[in-house]
Amino acid sequence: MLTVGVVGGTGYTGAELLRLLVAHPQVELKYVTSRSEAGSKVAELFPNLRGFTDVCFTEPAVDMLAECDLVFFATPNGTAMKMVPALIEKGVRVIDLAADFRLQDVAVWKQWYGMDHACADVLTEAVYGLPEINRTAIKTARVVANPGCYPTATTLGFLPLIENALVDDQHLIADAKSGVSGAGRGASVATLQAESSENFKPYAVDGHRHLPEIKQTLAALASHDVGLTFVPHLVPMIRGIETTLYATKLSDAAVDLHQLYVDCYADEPFVDVLPQGVMPETRTVKGANTCRISVFQPQGGDTIVVSSVIDNLVKGAAGQAIQNMNIMFEQEETLGLNQVALLP
Amino acid sequence: MLTVGVVGGTGYTGAELLRLLVAHPQVELKYVTSRSEAGSKVAELFPNLRGFTDVCFTEPAVDMLAECDLVFFATPNGTAMKMVPALIEKGVRVIDLAADFRLQDVAVWKQWYGMDHACADVLTEAVYGLPEINRTAIKTARVVANPGCYPTATTLGFLPLIENALVDDQHLIADAKSGVSGAGRGASVATLQAESSENFKPYAVDGHRHLPEIKQTLAALASHDVGLTFVPHLVPMIRGIETTLYATKLSDAAVDLHQLYVDCYADEPFVDVLPQGVMPETRTVKGANTCRISVFQPQGGDTIVVSSVIDNLVKGAAGQAIQNMNIMFEQEETLGLNQVALLP
Amino acid sequence: MLTVGVVGGTGYTGAELLRLLVAHPQVELKYVTSRSEAGSKVAELFPNLRGFTDVCFTEPAVDMLAECDLVFFATPNGTAMKMVPALIEKGVRVIDLAADFRLQDVAVWKQWYGMDHACADVLTEAVYGLPEINRTAIKTARVVANPGCYPTATTLGFLPLIENALVDDQHLIADAKSGVSGAGRGASVATLQAESSENFKPYAVDGHRHLPEIKQTLAALASHDVGLTFVPHLVPMIRGIETTLYATKLSDAAVDLHQLYVDCYADEPFVDVLPQGVMPETRTVKGANTCRISVFQPQGGDTIVVSSVIDNLVKGAAGQAIQNMNIMFEQEETLGLNQVALLP
Amino acid sequence: MLTVGVVGGTGYTGAELLRLLVAHPQVELKYVTSRSEAGSKVAELFPNLRGFTDVCFTEPAVDMLAECDLVFFATPNGTAMKMVPALIEKGVRVIDLAADFRLQDVAVWKQWYGMDHACADVLTEAVYGLPEINRTAIKTARVVANPGCYPTATTLGFLPLIENALVDDQHLIADAKSGVSGAGRGASVATLQAESSENFKPYAVDGHRHLPEIKQTLAALASHDVGLTFVPHLVPMIRGIETTLYATKLSDAAVDLHQLYVDCYADEPFVDVLPQGVMPETRTVKGANTCRISVFQPQGGDTIVVSSVIDNLVKGAAGQAIQNMNIMFEQEETLGLNQVALLP
Repeated sequence: MLTVGVVGGTGYTGAELLRLLVAHPQVELKYVTSRSEAGSKVAELFPNLRGFTDVCFTEPAVDMLAECDLVFFATPNGTAMKMVPALIEKGVRVIDLAADFRLQDVAVWKQWYGMDHACADVLTEAVYGLPEINRTAIKTARVVANPGCYPTATTLGFLPLIENALVDDQHLIADAKSGVSGAGRGASVATLQAESSENFKPYAVDGHRHLPEIKQTLAALASHDVGLTFVPHLVPMIRGIETTLYATKLSDAAVDLHQLYVDCYADEPFVDVLPQGVMPETRTVKGANTCRISVFQPQGGDTIVVSSVIDNLVKGAAGQAIQNMNIMFEQEETLGLNQVALLP
Repeated sequence: MLTVGVVGGTGYTGAELLRLLVAHPQVELKYVTSRSEAGSKVAELFPNLRGFTDVCFTEPAVDMLAECDLVFFATPNGTAMKMVPALIEKGVRVIDLAADFRLQDVAVWKQWYGMDHACADVLTEAVYGLPEINRTAIKTARVVANPGCYPTATTLGFLPLIENALVDDQHLIADAKSGVSGAGRGASVATLQAESSENFKPYAVDGHRHLPEIKQTLAALASHDVGLTFVPHLVPMIRGIETTLYATKLSDAAVDLHQLYVDCYADEPFVDVLPQGVMPETRTVKGANTCRISVFQPQGGDTIVVSSVIDNLVKGAAGQAIQNMNIMFEQEETLGLNQVALLP
Repeated sequence: MLTVGVVGGTGYTGAELLRLLVAHPQVELKYVTSRSEAGSKVAELFPNLRGFTDVCFTEPAVDMLAECDLVFFATPNGTAMKMVPALIEKGVRVIDLAADFRLQDVAVWKQWYGMDHACADVLTEAVYGLPEINRTAIKTARVVANPGCYPTATTLGFLPLIENALVDDQHLIADAKSGVSGAGRGASVATLQAESSENFKPYAVDGHRHLPEIKQTLAALASHDVGLTFVPHLVPMIRGIETTLYATKLSDAAVDLHQLYVDCYADEPFVDVLPQGVMPETRTVKGANTCRISVFQPQGGDTIVVSSVIDNLVKGAAGQAIQNMNIMFEQEETLGLNQVALLP
Repeated sequence: MLTVGVVGGTGYTGAELLRLLVAHPQVELKYVTSRSEAGSKVAELFPNLRGFTDVCFTEPAVDMLAECDLVFFATPNGTAMKMVPALIEKGVRVIDLAADFRLQDVAVWKQWYGMDHACADVLTEAVYGLPEINRTAIKTARVVANPGCYPTATTLGFLPLIENALVDDQHLIADAKSGVSGAGRGASVATLQAESSENFKPYAVDGHRHLPEIKQTLAALASHDVGLTFVPHLVPMIRGIETTLYATKLSDAAVDLHQLYVDCYADEPFVDVLPQGVMPETRTVKGANTCRISVFQPQGGDTIVVSSVIDNLVKGAAGQAIQNMNIMFEQEETLGLNQVALLP
């Protein structure tokens, strides 16, 4: 059994992590911390956990968390980087679901997150936790940076095209759409049901924090910088991300795009390339750790269209974190992640 | 032209009032106040008003508001009662969309709203603004207490039964359901879309502030105290209230319930008794000032069931306020209120 | 391993049954029948099942189904009763998720379902599959009538009051609300999203088929006929039923209602009585087999209010069917039913 | 007063047309036809019209419709083209809200709509009813082809860029999203609330009927063929279209994009270019005839991003039809179209 702690368990990412952890056969959930809820039962805040755990929220403390084999951070950006050095010092491994260890360049980090990085040295060893590209490094990582939700859907969608240098990678377009749980569980006017339901809108067109993250990964795959326009939109639903990707085909080489995707993901347990012509729908992954992808070449033109869907809270956050945990601790990669999506 | 001011124009009740006022042919919207938004354009906060008004939010000030013929208060409970005495002193008439002037008994007010009443003398002359029962008094009122949303739907539903003493009025039941706009535009976790959509729940079973308001009106109709169990529920939609009322028939008198309702509301422009057997739906009143009602006697038993629907922001708030304004200033009662409900 | 067949796997009840069956550790899903989809893969119609089953839809045939230990019927009313006699003849046990075996009186069946019953003799031995009242009989039943969704929520809510004769059982009121999946997966205008979302309405006030079913069970608990007014409503959400029950307390006996409910359900794995004052919410049971209940006595009056929530497709249909299967085949009752509700 | 008939008044486009017509001060609504509903009251099918019209559905008949000054067709594609020749022969003017007169090339029509065109001669004189580009021709047209919903939002968004030859018009991209009312009021599984709500998906990636329509208009603006990739998506809300457009800037000419759009639409009553940096939201046009647009150049790169929103049933259908009617019959263009969007 793995002994596990969760720092910051009151947001949606934390709640989803708890849902998956209490059902994981090899996990003992030992600590869940929250300064604001310390002392109260986790199952009081999230009544769906009634009967599954008696853990109470506690104040976060390094000594206490050091009893764990693994600590997840489901905290606001900038929190994990202050505690992680002390924890790994004590032999605890860490998966951070926030952005603290995602960007390798501290200058880029500061530009987008507005603060100095607190542990640039730890950042150097942190592994970007997208198993489909970094599985080997994740196995031995002390610190795993769990990818963002948009970056997961977008990167998995572009990967076969970029890796095989099939498209103009200086003018990539990602038109991304997310359900409102992506905005978090904090009180806010903009995501009140009376504001965000029955509405659709783009946001952060001028620049979203997931842009540099996606570009960093795609650049690594391409071995050079890429150009990307990334426009996120808010969808009036709770869970799900769909991203429609556009890229211009480089040559007339007769590549079978569908087969390319099928082959690329043949061994991946959580990437499902759909049959030719079938469109992904977010509801087919609701509550599941799966990414479903289709690729199209409309009217046989030179614009390639890829659609990729995930549950932003599962493959886009907590599920992927569990997947990383399984890899790090040599469990079956799918352990505790075999939920069938809830449909309808 | 009536010169009109709105105090507190940043909530949903205020926004709806502005929507109706800018389209009213006899109204000049002069001032809209908000401490938090002072200086910015109203149409910036509510972009649906772009092109309809250039008014900016201002700080509330009695002298300025005194230039108006009528001032609406769309403020939190307890605000209007502090400014109203000064305004009526200066000859301004007032419609309060909050609860400050709804309960005639200051002790009951204090019990449910947790504060002393600031102007018990003004309260004495305030008229409860439900036109269907108080039209004459509203005409000359200086202060109109605009009814709550649940009380409007519930009272209009019970009225013919109580007025005609047809039911056991000591065991009335109102099972009420409201869309989330009823919870207001304040930032809150409970009405985030990710929390309140795809969910249904009762709340305030132990006692909701609209309970004493409904009981006060029904008691006046019955000429004695009534017993009422009132259970509100939150519905995952933006607008609309449906209330299902249950009462036990007193005798076997062969009253035709449907005809009773038709006759009772024959002259009311905003109460629509549906054809026998047709069920009310909240969407048929979305954006409209109409209350639609049906009455049933299932299996011919002695339990009478009434269903009544309104748009909580229109007949349940801003529309009824406009209706009261029309009555107070001798306009056609339906002026500016002829919108067809938006369906679908 | 149990060998299982599902007749009629294309509706929501069938889809949910498949979701639970493919994840059940003791079940081999052998046949799923559908005349309209025969030949195509189940996972093609329900893409959430991709990777979990390769079963194809087949035409229903008794000989084929006779290879199974257990056959579920997730068919329209009136279908199961035609095939069940032949199946039990061949030693197959049956759980019917439709209404064919729910009403013991064939005259009442005909009155509400508009057809003669096809196997009155089998009806006699059929057991009403509400484990909380019929667990022992279910163990050995050849035919289990899986309860309706409204009856499950309503009966579990009333049970402690009726069993203990605490209320006037001639004037019971159940104000019930269901998500739209309860209306089924058939093409229809009334439950198009553009019709049913952003809307709330009562329906079938004059008499719903679940009324005689609830009355039959409550009468058995009371040992005499009961009077019930049952008004269902359609809620703009996919899953979930909440039912608010009203009953008049008989005497002033100082019974602790909360404790009564806690004690009554202390040993039930799938009924969760909430802490005093906590309101049930449908989202806390989304995807789970749990019924959560609270009881209230507003203002200390003599009207008792009970609120009970279930997921209509799980405890209200497929989950309860699995629970019955576990009981019938001497499995752990909770096997395959330990999903944490999906929240948010 | 204009005498008006509506052929096919039972779908959402028809219902919205009726909502606007009954409130139009210069319109007498004389006939509404529907074969399936003939004989019943319009307000019975659409209860929001109760009190606004007593018209009953009738069978469509040319002689009867010939009494009207104007006939709207809100019928399935292929219906209007069979009746229009006889109507214009009798001096009736026609606005077709379906696609029958949108594509000037009958071969393209046949390719996308799967049938021969029934009146190629009438097609020649039909005017494409997008007032922002064809106002003068609309004034005298006998037959106006009311544009599709996606084409309206997309064309108005691209117009200033194409007209001024600022972008590579061979690789235009339109990522469009529509609420479910766009799918119509016909019974269908795919748009049941339990299917389409809490879901997001692309569809018709291989080719949507609005693609040739948009290309035809853009080609006319560009004076040569254009290349366009058009991917529509279904959004879980009732009303609204948002389309995000991507185009590559041709040169480094220092054009002020925002000012370009402001100038282009300065005199248009129903196109609202938002202040720089403000993002369009569909809810700000719910029920209104307005198109709101913003233009961006993210990170100062050479990819231009435009976002454009409309209510698909208003500016995307019925509202634009009323606007065309006003132009054709020399009314104030905004008459009967001054509704403030319903927010929230």
